[in-house]
Amino acid sequence: MLAKEIFREFKEHSVSEFFRKNAAMLGYTGKIRSLTTIVHEGVTNGIDAAEEAGILPSILVAIKQIGPEHYRVVIEDNASGIPKKFVPQVFGKMLAGTKLHRNVQNRGQQGIGVSGATMFAQITSGKPTKVLTSVGDGEITQMEIMIDVNKNVGKVIGSKRLKEEWRGTRVEFEVKEVNYQRSRYGPFNYLRMTAIANPHVRITFVEPDGTLTIFERATEKMPKRPRPIPPHPWGIRSDDLLSLAKTSKAHTIANFLATELSRVSKKKMGQIERLSGVDLRKSPREMTWEDAERIVSAFKRMKFMSPPTKGLCPIGAKNIERGMSQILNPEFVYAVTRPPKVYRGGIPFIVEAGIAYGGDAGKQGENSEGLEIIRFANRAPLIFDQGGCVMTSAARDVDWRRYGVNPNVTPVTLFLNIISTHVPYTSAGKQSVADEPEVYEEVRSAIMDVARELRRFLNRKIRRREQMKRAGIFERYLPIIAKRAANLAETDEPDVGPLLEKVTGVDFDPEE
Amino acid sequence: MLAKEIFREFKEHSVSEFFRKNAAMLGYTGKIRSLTTIVHEGVTNGIDAAEEAGILPSILVAIKQIGPEHYRVVIEDNASGIPKKFVPQVFGKMLAGTKLHRNVQNRGQQGIGVSGATMFAQITSGKPTKVLTSVGDGEITQMEIMIDVNKNVGKVIGSKRLKEEWRGTRVEFEVKEVNYQRSRYGPFNYLRMTAIANPHVRITFVEPDGTLTIFERATEKMPKRPRPIPPHPWGIRSDDLLSLAKTSKAHTIANFLATELSRVSKKKMGQIERLSGVDLRKSPREMTWEDAERIVSAFKRMKFMSPPTKGLCPIGAKNIERGMSQILNPEFVYAVTRPPKVYRGGIPFIVEAGIAYGGDAGKQGENSEGLEIIRFANRAPLIFDQGGCVMTSAARDVDWRRYGVNPNVTPVTLFLNIISTHVPYTSAGKQSVADEPEVYEEVRSAIMDVARELRRFLNRKIRRREQMKRAGIFERYLPIIAKRAANLAETDEPDVGPLLEKVTGVDFDPEE
Repeated sequence: MLAKEIFREFKEHSVSEFFRKNAAMLGYTGKIRSLTTIVHEGVTNGIDAAEEAGILPSILVAIKQIGPEHYRVVIEDNASGIPKKFVPQVFGKMLAGTKLHRNVQNRGQQGIGVSGATMFAQITSGKPTKVLTSVGDGEITQMEIMIDVNKNVGKVIGSKRLKEEWRGTRVEFEVKEVNYQRSRYGPFNYLRMTAIANPHVRITFVEPDGTLTIFERATEKMPKRPRPIPPHPWGIRSDDLLSLAKTSKAHTIANFLATELSRVSKKKMGQIERLSGVDLRKSPREMTWEDAERIVSAFKRMKFMSPPTKGLCPIGAKNIERGMSQILNPEFVYAVTRPPKVYRGGIPFIVEAGIAYGGDAGKQGENSEGLEIIRFANRAPLIFDQGGCVMTSAARDVDWRRYGVNPNVTPVTLFLNIISTHVPYTSAGKQSVADEPEVYEEVRSAIMDVARELRRFLNRKIRRREQMKRAGIFERYLPIIAKRAANLAETDEPDVGPLLEKVTGVDFDPEE
Repeated sequence: MLAKEIFREFKEHSVSEFFRKNAAMLGYTGKIRSLTTIVHEGVTNGIDAAEEAGILPSILVAIKQIGPEHYRVVIEDNASGIPKKFVPQVFGKMLAGTKLHRNVQNRGQQGIGVSGATMFAQITSGKPTKVLTSVGDGEITQMEIMIDVNKNVGKVIGSKRLKEEWRGTRVEFEVKEVNYQRSRYGPFNYLRMTAIANPHVRITFVEPDGTLTIFERATEKMPKRPRPIPPHPWGIRSDDLLSLAKTSKAHTIANFLATELSRVSKKKMGQIERLSGVDLRKSPREMTWEDAERIVSAFKRMKFMSPPTKGLCPIGAKNIERGMSQILNPEFVYAVTRPPKVYRGGIPFIVEAGIAYGGDAGKQGENSEGLEIIRFANRAPLIFDQGGCVMTSAARDVDWRRYGVNPNVTPVTLFLNIISTHVPYTSAGKQSVADEPEVYEEVRSAIMDVARELRRFLNRKIRRREQMKRAGIFERYLPIIAKRAANLAETDEPDVGPLLEKVTGVDFDPEE
């Protein structure tokens, strides 16, 4: 066939059309998973929005069945609302949002999630997504949004205003080809896991059968607000430096570097100039690729403080323990928040791990026992694509038997959370974290930290059991021996309590 | 914070900007993998292009080291070339290509791959991608292309014409932050796997140290050309039907259905009309969502022949066996091409499996032995993201010991290939296939087919070993017994050969 004929078929797609054809890449695969993905997108957006506005998040999720494989999913938050003119873009345009350009820890980061949910609702039910939102000015905007997939723009199908005092956003997706189930992969478990990792969030959940569950806040304290962390000189690529420079408002490259990167103080400029040979008095708009490459290569030969990590907000070991205790009711729980590290030279991240033993910990359900891994990224649960995730491989590679755990039997739940300004997801579905070597090592270390504590607990438990066994023997025979001895010696029977205590280490005070 | 302030940050991204920030989603993660991904994109494009033009593919790959972590990757094909005006779009625009809209089996399917390679080259080296192409008209177009990531368009940096007789396309990527290695994940193994699954392709490979390897064609026969397969009524969604209808040139819905879907004959129209209540004499442009939904729901209650699968072109069991034999030199090899199946109601696919035992089969390298799984989709090797792939989970779930295989020890290579008009990849990186239940079941069945044959072989092997052992005993003692018996009977010593053969089933002809 000739090139001319072949290229008659040359076409362009919009990003919405791409994800319409490849909805699996956004997590829309399988009837249960697809429903959970919609809940996930709505809930992460709601929590992000409330936190960003400095409001303790209260989220309502209600799922109503309309027909076979046909549901309405309602997600409501108490955040600051969405100005009217942004509604079509937020819900109907992919790759648009308030979080795209900022180096800040967020659950969402791509501007695809919620418009992806609108799209999935639309391609399965043909219905627009209904949005009610108010910024708290006494007026509620109600809009019905669809995506024009050929152009990737949000179309307003219907719109009205209601006079009412309220603040927040309520979204209603009407969706088909999905199923509600209370399984590990269903919305209930998703929300339960969200509650563990977000003790400051109140979640109200209404299931299709009307069951109401409230995951109450375990703390009224608002977590610290994550702050943007400017790129670190060791983590930036020439290409990123150049594209930052092109839009910088600074008058000189020196000024640009000092204000838009972290840890680059004015004092360093002499050294940068010397090592790179670039004139830093030039305008950043005049920076060439070679300049950028030379500056980045100079950075690599210089010393800088590690990236600032105050902007990262982990859950905290105590909160993880509280969350796990509340939900799993275990015999033992322990958690760590590791100190911040960087990957790819300069992207800061923090790993947290928690471990729970006994109670409801461990894999649940018929025929499945042993180690359960629950994964989070920036506090949002990751429940799919477990196999390809760096957290799973790190957990698998641990020699669990060294810690007294048989992964097929011991009832253990391992909690893992990665906090970062940029979580390296493997796919737009954001369910799996890529295998960056530094992240792998850090997850592994965190797991070993908590596994060591578990081993100590299990050893104590074994020791105590042996102790009790030993104590049982003494307790049984010592009084008899004492009695016989007293008979023989014709004296009074002595009090064997203190002796027993001394020998066995167990307190035999009869009043207890 | 107020909504107004928050939404001051509202931004839009182009799809190129999205993948620039999330290059890991396209497979650009790690220095070795990133280099392999570039080779993968160039080679799959080259083979697709040659096959489409009806030309036996000859591909040249040359990797030259320019500096530390700095390489030039050249990929050349002998296909029909690219008309000049399409060059910037093919290499510099994402979501553009000749394969996007067609339901046809292809290695590429998204129009992201090769422009993603241009982008990765550009963000690491700052250099444009050089393209030489000719449609065979005595003129070669040479262009240097970069991507304008803000607009997702290809920019032509330099362009010239050369007068020369040649036909094909040669691309040169200059890339940094990558490393060449001859590991499992490196380009060499990638090309070796490509050769196994594409015995009609000749691949010439020049490594950075100058080593030349030629993977010769194992067959001169051009594989059958895959043909577009129109959507099947059971696999189409209302949304797809509607969007097809909107662009149809047919005058009536009846005509539209008969021409643009497969297996919907004119004879069915009465039944569709009756079951759906939709007037099929209307123009397809007037079709509403409700019409589409009713027609799709009518389809589900009707009988249709299975989707046509003549358009799908598997590798073929014999070719797989030939490919595996050539590369692995095994003791035993067996392959199957399963009959076509469908997933999601109507998307046709074929699973092929091959198994090799002994020789170079099985996991290679230090400390690793046992079962090796090599995965393909539409004949292109998948070497990353193994953990999240349906082929891996199906292989893991097989009870290998029932087939005489200890996955940690037995030297077995399992070959798996999924052929489809639409492979359900989990991510834009196309390295992992989603867990569609029908695909899982079919892969599992294919594995069991080949594993059963392997078990038969292993049983025969064991039987033969026992036979030989038994034969050994007879061989040792029968002559002695015969001699003693002859001595006792004072007769000549008889020829025990025929007897031995009869007793043991082994041929003892001394000439052998």
